[in-house]
Amino acid sequence: MASGDSKAADKGLQENQQNTTNEEDFAKDSYGNLPLIQSKEKNDRQLLPVRDVNEALAKQTIWVRGRLHTSRGKGKQCFFVIRHQSATIQAVLCVNENVSKPMVKFVANISKESIIDVEGEVSLAPTPIESCTQKNVELQVKKVFVVSAAEPRLPLLVEDAMRPDEPTTADGQAGPHVNQDTRLDNRVIDLRTPANQAIYRVEAGVCKLFRDTLDAKGFVEIHTPKIISAASEGGANVFQVTYFKSNAYLAQSPQFYKQMAIAADFGKVYTIGAVFRAEDSNTHRHLTEFVGLDLEMAFSYHYHEVVDTIGDLFTQIFKGLAERFATEIAIINKQYPCEPFEFVEPALRLEYKDGVALLADAGVQMGSEDDLTTENERILGGIVKKKYHTDFYILDKYPLAVRPFYTMPDPNNPKYSNSYDMFIRGEEILSGAQRVHDPQLLLERVKHHKINIDQIKAYIDAFRYGCPPHAGGGIGLERVLMLYLGLGNVRKTSMFPRDPKRVTP
Amino acid sequence: MASGDSKAADKGLQENQQNTTNEEDFAKDSYGNLPLIQSKEKNDRQLLPVRDVNEALAKQTIWVRGRLHTSRGKGKQCFFVIRHQSATIQAVLCVNENVSKPMVKFVANISKESIIDVEGEVSLAPTPIESCTQKNVELQVKKVFVVSAAEPRLPLLVEDAMRPDEPTTADGQAGPHVNQDTRLDNRVIDLRTPANQAIYRVEAGVCKLFRDTLDAKGFVEIHTPKIISAASEGGANVFQVTYFKSNAYLAQSPQFYKQMAIAADFGKVYTIGAVFRAEDSNTHRHLTEFVGLDLEMAFSYHYHEVVDTIGDLFTQIFKGLAERFATEIAIINKQYPCEPFEFVEPALRLEYKDGVALLADAGVQMGSEDDLTTENERILGGIVKKKYHTDFYILDKYPLAVRPFYTMPDPNNPKYSNSYDMFIRGEEILSGAQRVHDPQLLLERVKHHKINIDQIKAYIDAFRYGCPPHAGGGIGLERVLMLYLGLGNVRKTSMFPRDPKRVTP
Repeated sequence: MASGDSKAADKGLQENQQNTTNEEDFAKDSYGNLPLIQSKEKNDRQLLPVRDVNEALAKQTIWVRGRLHTSRGKGKQCFFVIRHQSATIQAVLCVNENVSKPMVKFVANISKESIIDVEGEVSLAPTPIESCTQKNVELQVKKVFVVSAAEPRLPLLVEDAMRPDEPTTADGQAGPHVNQDTRLDNRVIDLRTPANQAIYRVEAGVCKLFRDTLDAKGFVEIHTPKIISAASEGGANVFQVTYFKSNAYLAQSPQFYKQMAIAADFGKVYTIGAVFRAEDSNTHRHLTEFVGLDLEMAFSYHYHEVVDTIGDLFTQIFKGLAERFATEIAIINKQYPCEPFEFVEPALRLEYKDGVALLADAGVQMGSEDDLTTENERILGGIVKKKYHTDFYILDKYPLAVRPFYTMPDPNNPKYSNSYDMFIRGEEILSGAQRVHDPQLLLERVKHHKINIDQIKAYIDAFRYGCPPHAGGGIGLERVLMLYLGLGNVRKTSMFPRDPKRVTP
Repeated sequence: MASGDSKAADKGLQENQQNTTNEEDFAKDSYGNLPLIQSKEKNDRQLLPVRDVNEALAKQTIWVRGRLHTSRGKGKQCFFVIRHQSATIQAVLCVNENVSKPMVKFVANISKESIIDVEGEVSLAPTPIESCTQKNVELQVKKVFVVSAAEPRLPLLVEDAMRPDEPTTADGQAGPHVNQDTRLDNRVIDLRTPANQAIYRVEAGVCKLFRDTLDAKGFVEIHTPKIISAASEGGANVFQVTYFKSNAYLAQSPQFYKQMAIAADFGKVYTIGAVFRAEDSNTHRHLTEFVGLDLEMAFSYHYHEVVDTIGDLFTQIFKGLAERFATEIAIINKQYPCEPFEFVEPALRLEYKDGVALLADAGVQMGSEDDLTTENERILGGIVKKKYHTDFYILDKYPLAVRPFYTMPDPNNPKYSNSYDMFIRGEEILSGAQRVHDPQLLLERVKHHKINIDQIKAYIDAFRYGCPPHAGGGIGLERVLMLYLGLGNVRKTSMFPRDPKRVTP
């Protein structure tokens, strides 16, 4: 897995070490390895972010800090690219009255990914530098210091990791790629690619938009416990924890707790936090630990008040992403091209039975009370996209038989329920429902589902002292982002993913 | 634990049931138990929040939904209080041409905490109603329907649960109190008190201020895994999880992951999430699961860049709370009186050795390299408050010996380190440091601390490919709120607290 140029880099390291024993060098104060930054003294030097270096700074001498992305030494000069987050700039170092040959050699031999402080004069690029984000300027380098050296043997190169999977150049030539396990094993390097820098900024944006939209609607953020005393939904797929001299479990969702917050008069609540599923599913869309965006809301008379709220929430998220993260999305699309995301306002809401009918029209047969298979969800997503021009829609009134015990039955048809899923590009990203808020009906449903009443006593008891009608839903953050960006694998949207085979790094 | 009036309530329930068999009642359509709200049909009726009912609405007929907080039936009339979240309003029901005697009886017998829809005309109160938040208006009731009935036997009364611990009335008489375990065992009722409604709104405010302040400073929100492969800091105090056919652990902090995000070029990151400590500490300030507000930041040359950022973060939080949550804080202080919170801007920063000297001046002797005991922290907090008039301060440059292995040693004095704690009212709420970002020095420190290198290999490796100098810290959300509000127990600021003896509800 070592990069191809590691031998050359090893040689360079030796030469750099020898360098310190050389005879007097007139440029010796202009380059070298900085001592470890241990906060020995303060320094007022301004380090300019690479993304801010542009034509307006021409002829000014500035300092930047970044990684050595690539370098090419040719005799008396060295061209190198400095990368900081998603931004890159070309730097030029030439032997002159202030720059010595040993200095050029030193810089040419700095290992890739090392962090360097560079002083240089901003100059206009004679022709646009297509390989860098800062296309119209370059740095005429005066000083270079290594802040933190990377080992010369890198397990993967950022250059390779940032290459699109499908060659998009005219000549159809693709460079080396990095497979997913290598990326995840060396996540600290993999995360440095422009696409990854952008993905996790967009992910933060989804959370911010979720919260800001709900805050404006009067929701209260809450925090729910992850350690619970009993496997809440029947005992399957739950991780067990050794809890002092006893056992406990990891919560599969904040479901019960957000409902208790409703029974406790908080009215409208949301929570963002870790959710755990001990499911041995090794697919592109399953994780054993993911980030849940959960909300729950008391309503006045009809659960569609909540469905409309969630529909509008997604509209606001989609609008906000398009408005605030266009740059990041463009960077991601460059590595991972995908069809532009479409949505309609207000969000499309279909009934389950109408979805089944659409499938039947397309030749897909299924029972009216069967659950949708993943494959049928995808087909239906395609049909909906063609017919309604939206990649997001709501499917309402699922068959009661395929939903959890706490789902409110449809009062108008006992086969159905007041429950809904929401989809992006044909894959489920939210599951929700009106909940049973009456303890008697809840007990009936618990018995019908043959669930051990003792294990959920505290939950049922929560409804004995008055509870408003309420509905809500849970969103998988990583799935939303994977599908919105068309990334194809949920491991691309979890910074340190957990699946049945991976708990490191 | 049943409330004193449960027998009367039982009797009332029977009478209410008999009521349905009575002869024709001219008001029969104006009261009763609503069928279960199962979203059978939509209803455009506007339910006004109780907090919004004021003089401006005088003579208007409105609908409100709330809980029956208290009621007093006297012959032909019934006075009752409707509570919605922190707001209460008095309602008056009198027999007249539209209100029958059976109706008054029905309402007088509704069990406390039941959720009711009430239609009434807003009238100006003849004298201010001191027992309600809406003091200048009352409702002349026309219709009352029970939306969700509470069981007549309540494990605790909200009236009792909202009473200040110390009697503050002139006569010094205190009513019944509710002890902490009863509260926590019946948290869904306990959380309905005005103080609890306010506490969790202020808690949401702390998180929002934390995020908004850091977003404005260019931080990126990240999510870090809670399931980890090895006990990160030596193996003590860590919960073990059964992970398929193997074992894993619950993260004691997001420390390693936020540092990896720094090594991965995110520059400035924060995360809010569950943190787990398998510590058998049964104190007022320990939880086994709490909410960590963590941040980490690359700096240019000195870790005080980070300390100043965190100091300003707290300033913004304190200012924001005072500005946006004055109402909630006043409600909380009513039940839990405490000294007003003082702070200075910029935040006070003292060196550890100067703190030790202040203690010595006050007659408290300790070794210069010893850690501060909880008791000495509190004494020092008192001294600082007296001298500098601040309840928040930063203690910098802790002895190296008492800090974790990844703490950067002080380059100017090997006995000390570039680390700091922050305090509110003399108790620690943040611990942080410049971290060792050099893999060689890190290995030395690991060996010095006799930690198993194999278990933290992925962590050490993260620094092999270049890492900027960085520092950060972790804040305990529940502690910040407990101390800021002077609540005295961290179980008062955790919605569903977890300690060695409690994992329910």
